[in-house]
Amino acid sequence: MKSSPKATSGTLHHGKKDLVADWERLFKVFIRPEEDACRETLIKYMEQILFGLNDFLKKHVGITESASLKDLASRFAGTVINDEPVTKLSDVITCLINDLAPHAVNVASPYFVGHMTSAIPFFMVHLKTIVSALNQNVVKLETSKVVSILEKQVIAKIHRMVYAKSDAFYLEHVQNTDSSLGVFTEGGTTANLTALWVARNSAFPPKAEFVGIEADGLSAAFRAHDIDQCVILVSRLGHYSLKKAAGILGLGNNAVVPIDTDADFRIDITALKKAISGIREKSPKIHIMAVVGIAGATETGTVDPLAEMADICKTYGIHFHVDAAWGGPTLLSAKNRHLLSGIENADSVTIDGHKQFYMPMSCGMVYFNDPRHLDVIAYYSHYVNRRGSVDLGIKSLSGSREANSLILDGALKIMGKKGYSLLIDHGIETAALFAAEIEKRPDFQLVTRPVLNILTYRYCPEHLQKQLAAASSDERKKINKRINGANLNLQRLQREAGKSFVSRTTLRADHGHEDDIVVLRCVIMNPMTTISILGDILDEQEEIAKKRLPVCGL
Amino acid sequence: MKSSPKATSGTLHHGKKDLVADWERLFKVFIRPEEDACRETLIKYMEQILFGLNDFLKKHVGITESASLKDLASRFAGTVINDEPVTKLSDVITCLINDLAPHAVNVASPYFVGHMTSAIPFFMVHLKTIVSALNQNVVKLETSKVVSILEKQVIAKIHRMVYAKSDAFYLEHVQNTDSSLGVFTEGGTTANLTALWVARNSAFPPKAEFVGIEADGLSAAFRAHDIDQCVILVSRLGHYSLKKAAGILGLGNNAVVPIDTDADFRIDITALKKAISGIREKSPKIHIMAVVGIAGATETGTVDPLAEMADICKTYGIHFHVDAAWGGPTLLSAKNRHLLSGIENADSVTIDGHKQFYMPMSCGMVYFNDPRHLDVIAYYSHYVNRRGSVDLGIKSLSGSREANSLILDGALKIMGKKGYSLLIDHGIETAALFAAEIEKRPDFQLVTRPVLNILTYRYCPEHLQKQLAAASSDERKKINKRINGANLNLQRLQREAGKSFVSRTTLRADHGHEDDIVVLRCVIMNPMTTISILGDILDEQEEIAKKRLPVCGL
Repeated sequence: MKSSPKATSGTLHHGKKDLVADWERLFKVFIRPEEDACRETLIKYMEQILFGLNDFLKKHVGITESASLKDLASRFAGTVINDEPVTKLSDVITCLINDLAPHAVNVASPYFVGHMTSAIPFFMVHLKTIVSALNQNVVKLETSKVVSILEKQVIAKIHRMVYAKSDAFYLEHVQNTDSSLGVFTEGGTTANLTALWVARNSAFPPKAEFVGIEADGLSAAFRAHDIDQCVILVSRLGHYSLKKAAGILGLGNNAVVPIDTDADFRIDITALKKAISGIREKSPKIHIMAVVGIAGATETGTVDPLAEMADICKTYGIHFHVDAAWGGPTLLSAKNRHLLSGIENADSVTIDGHKQFYMPMSCGMVYFNDPRHLDVIAYYSHYVNRRGSVDLGIKSLSGSREANSLILDGALKIMGKKGYSLLIDHGIETAALFAAEIEKRPDFQLVTRPVLNILTYRYCPEHLQKQLAAASSDERKKINKRINGANLNLQRLQREAGKSFVSRTTLRADHGHEDDIVVLRCVIMNPMTTISILGDILDEQEEIAKKRLPVCGL
Repeated sequence: MKSSPKATSGTLHHGKKDLVADWERLFKVFIRPEEDACRETLIKYMEQILFGLNDFLKKHVGITESASLKDLASRFAGTVINDEPVTKLSDVITCLINDLAPHAVNVASPYFVGHMTSAIPFFMVHLKTIVSALNQNVVKLETSKVVSILEKQVIAKIHRMVYAKSDAFYLEHVQNTDSSLGVFTEGGTTANLTALWVARNSAFPPKAEFVGIEADGLSAAFRAHDIDQCVILVSRLGHYSLKKAAGILGLGNNAVVPIDTDADFRIDITALKKAISGIREKSPKIHIMAVVGIAGATETGTVDPLAEMADICKTYGIHFHVDAAWGGPTLLSAKNRHLLSGIENADSVTIDGHKQFYMPMSCGMVYFNDPRHLDVIAYYSHYVNRRGSVDLGIKSLSGSREANSLILDGALKIMGKKGYSLLIDHGIETAALFAAEIEKRPDFQLVTRPVLNILTYRYCPEHLQKQLAAASSDERKKINKRINGANLNLQRLQREAGKSFVSRTTLRADHGHEDDIVVLRCVIMNPMTTISILGDILDEQEEIAKKRLPVCGL
C-alpha cells in the first residue's frame, strides 16, 4: 500500500504489482503492519476518513430529486466481480469520500429532522472501530470471553435503568449463567420479534403429550390448548415491526388488533378494556397473547399510559410488552423519566441503541422482567452453546453477532446519565418550543403535540382552516384531500431542494372524523438542531408553499 | 478532550471539568472538531486503537481456564450507571487496550483454528469505520440514498457469482425497484430464517377466503390448504439455526427432519429420496416445505450433492434452499468453485459476509433465484417503506440496518476474485496437508476428511485403535466413551494453556455403528495458519495427552 505511484481508479490493470492479488501482498494485508512507513499510511487513511467525511458532513442534507436517482442507478449497474483488484485501499477511501459520500444522506445535519437517525458523538466512531479491530463474536465465550462478561454487565445496567430492582437482585443475576436480563439484537424490529416470540412460547407451555410450541409448532399448540386464534393488542400507532413479528411467528399479522387512541394519541384505555372483554366474551378460544404499550410512537412520539396498561395486563394475566425503541433512554433523565412511568411493570421492553443512545447503526435490545423468561427460546448445539455454558447465543434470535455492548458500555462511561440527560432534555424542550412556533404561524396547524421530541403538523392556510371548521363532512373530506396533496408536495419539494428534511406520514388525526390526513413529521434529536434552525425550516416551507403550491389548488 | 491532565481512571470526580456533562462540551462531542490540536488528538486515539490493539493481537489466543472467568465475572458486577461521566475517550481507549483486550480472544492468531472467526484484512477496519462515520440507515432511501443503490449493485454481483444468469437478466434487475435479488441480514441465522420464511409463505398462497399465511397465520393456512404438518429436510449436519427458524416460524423445530449422511458426511441421496416418498405415502396432509442443502457444514465443512438435490426438489416441486453461509465464497475460486456445483439451481442461498468474505462481525446475506420471490414477505408503512419506493426495508426481516454492503463492495474492489481465491485455495490446500499429517501420526485418527477447509479428528492411541477394530459392539462403546472423555479433556487443557485453540463437537461418525464420538475440529481460514503451525498444534496435543491424560484412563 505504501509509496506506490497513484493508481488511476477504474483502470483495471494499472499498478497491478502494488495490489493484493499475490500471496506476499495478501499476507501484508492480513498481518498488522510493523514498519513505520506503513503505519503512517494507515493512520493517514484514518485521517482521511475522519476529516474527509467531515467536510461532507458539514454540507446540506442531500436527498435530492428522483431524476438524480435514475442517474445514480445507471452508474451502479455493473454486476461482474472484477478478477484482479481494481483499487487500492487509498483509492477506495478517496472514491468513497469524493464520489459516494456526496450522494449519501447527511443524517448529521441539524436540518435533517425527518427520521430517527442523526448526528452521533464522534467517539462512537472510535468505539465502533475498536469493536471491529477486536472482531469478537459474542455468540459464544470461545470467541469473545471478557466481552461476553462485559455484555452481561451492560445488560444489567440497562435492566436496572428500566426495572430498578434491588441491589440483591442485580448481584444475583448480573453474571449468573442461568439468568438472562435481556439480549442484544440487530435492531428494534428483532427486539420486538424476540419479545413476542418469548410471549408466544410462554403462552403455550407443555401439556400432556404436547412438548411445547417451539418444538411442536403452532398448530399443535392451538390443539393442545384448545385455542383457535391468538391476538396482540396495540394502539393504531404501533410500529409495523409488530405486524411483521406476528406474521413471522405464524400468528398472522391480522392477529395484531389496532386499538383506538385518545385525543392525545395515547392508547384509549376504555377502548383497550372494551376490546379485551369483547374478545373474552366472544370466545374462550381466542387467546390474548400480548398487549403492547408504546413509549415513543414512531410517528408521533407519544407515550401510552403504561402504568394503567400494566395493571390491566396483570388483572387478565396478559404479557405486557413495551416498545420503548425510541423513548427508552428518556429514563436516564431525572427531569423526564416520569413520562415513562409504569414501564417497570412491563414483562418485556424493547430499546434501541442506535436511536436515543446515539450509537452507530445498528443496535437493538430487549429486556425481561423475569431473568428466566428467555429460557423458552433456548437453543443448544454440539459445537457451541452447550448446556450450562456462558454462551450468550443460547437465548438469542441472532447467531454470530458483533459486540455492540462494548460501544454502549464506553458511551455510558463517557457520557454518564448527565450527558445523556442533556441530549434527551434538549430534544424535549426544543420540540415544545417548535410546537409553540408552529401555533404562532397562521398557515400551519400543529397536529400532534410533542410529549417527547417528535411532533407532527401540516401546512394549512388560514382561510382553509376556517373553511374546514364550517364544512360539512363531504366538504371537509374534499378540503382535506387538497391539503393532503399540498403537504405531500411540500415535503417532496423541500426534500428535493436539499437543504432541509422533514418526513411525512398519514394519521387518522382528525378527531371525531374518519379523515386520514397527511402530516409533516419532525424528530428533534440532534443537539445542534436549535429553534432558530427549525424556524428556518418553517420559513422555507412557507416560501415553497407560496411560490409553488398554487398548482395544487391551494 | 485535548491537553487535559491524565485522569485517573475509576476516580469518579477527577477532571470533571474536562468531561462531557455540560452543554458546551456536549456540543464539542457532536460537532466534528475543527481545531488542529483537537484533530491531532482524535488521530492519536485511532493510532492507539489500530496499533495498541495490534500488540494484543500478536499474543497468544487467550481463552483461559474457568477460574479466571469467575475472577473476571466478579470484576464486572457493578450495575449502576454513573451519573457523571467517569472517563474521557482516551481513558476508555486506554482501558480497553490495557485491561479489556488482554482478556478478549485473539481470533486473529494463526493458532486460533477452532471457529469460523479469524484474522480480517486490516482494511476491513477502515471500511467499517467509514460505514460508522457515515451512519447511513439502509432501511430506507431517505436515510441512505446512494448507499441503497450501491447495495442493490453488490447484491447483484453476489447473485451473479451464485446464479450466473445472463447479462440481460442483471441489466433488468440490478436497479429495478420491483426486483430483489437478495437481502442483507445480521448473519447466517437470520438469512436462513428469511429463506424459510419466504418458502413458508410461498407454500400457503391465498385461496378463496384465505388471504395468505402472513396475514391469516399458520393455523388458518393449514386449514385452507388441508395440511396437518409441514416439514423441512436437511442432513443431520444442518446448522441449528434451521431448527430455530422452524421454531420461530410456527412450524415447530420438530419439523426439521434429519436425514442420514453417507460415508463422506454428505446427505445420503437414497435416504433423502426415501424420506420424501415415505412422507408422501404416509399422508397427503404432510407438506414438504423445503429441502436444505449444505455447502460447508459447520462441523465438518462437507458439501452436499447440490445438483442431485436440486433435481429431486424440481421433480417434487419443493423449495430448495442451500445454506452456504460458510462455503459460498468458494465460488470466487476458479480452481474450487466446482465443489459447489448445482448451487445455481437453488431457490435460495445463504452466504455470510463475516465468514469467508472476511468482513468484520456481523453480516449475512440471502439470495433468491426468482427476483420476485421476496415479495411474499413485503411490509409497508405510512412513514417509510411506501409502496413503489426504492426502500430496501420493504422486503427484509430487519428494520434499521447498517450499510454492510459498502464494506463488501470495497473488499471486492480491493481483493478481486483473485485475492479471495488465494485465501480460499490456501484454506483448502492447507486442510488437505493437515489431514495427511494427522494420518501420518499413529496416535491420531482423521474423522472427517476435508472437502473445503474444515476437518475433524481425534486423539486415539494406536493400541486403542487396534482394540476398537477387534471389539464387540459393547466393548467398542466402552472404549469410545473413554476416548471421548480423553478428547474432551485434551481440548480443554489445550484451550486453557492459552497458546492454541481447536474446538470440539460430537459426531455420529462411526459408520455402521451408533456411537457418538467427540472430535477435535479445525477451521483453516487464516492465511497465516501454515502446516507448520498445525504441526505445532498436534505436537502440543501429543504432549498434553502423554503428560496429563493417563488420569483419563488412556
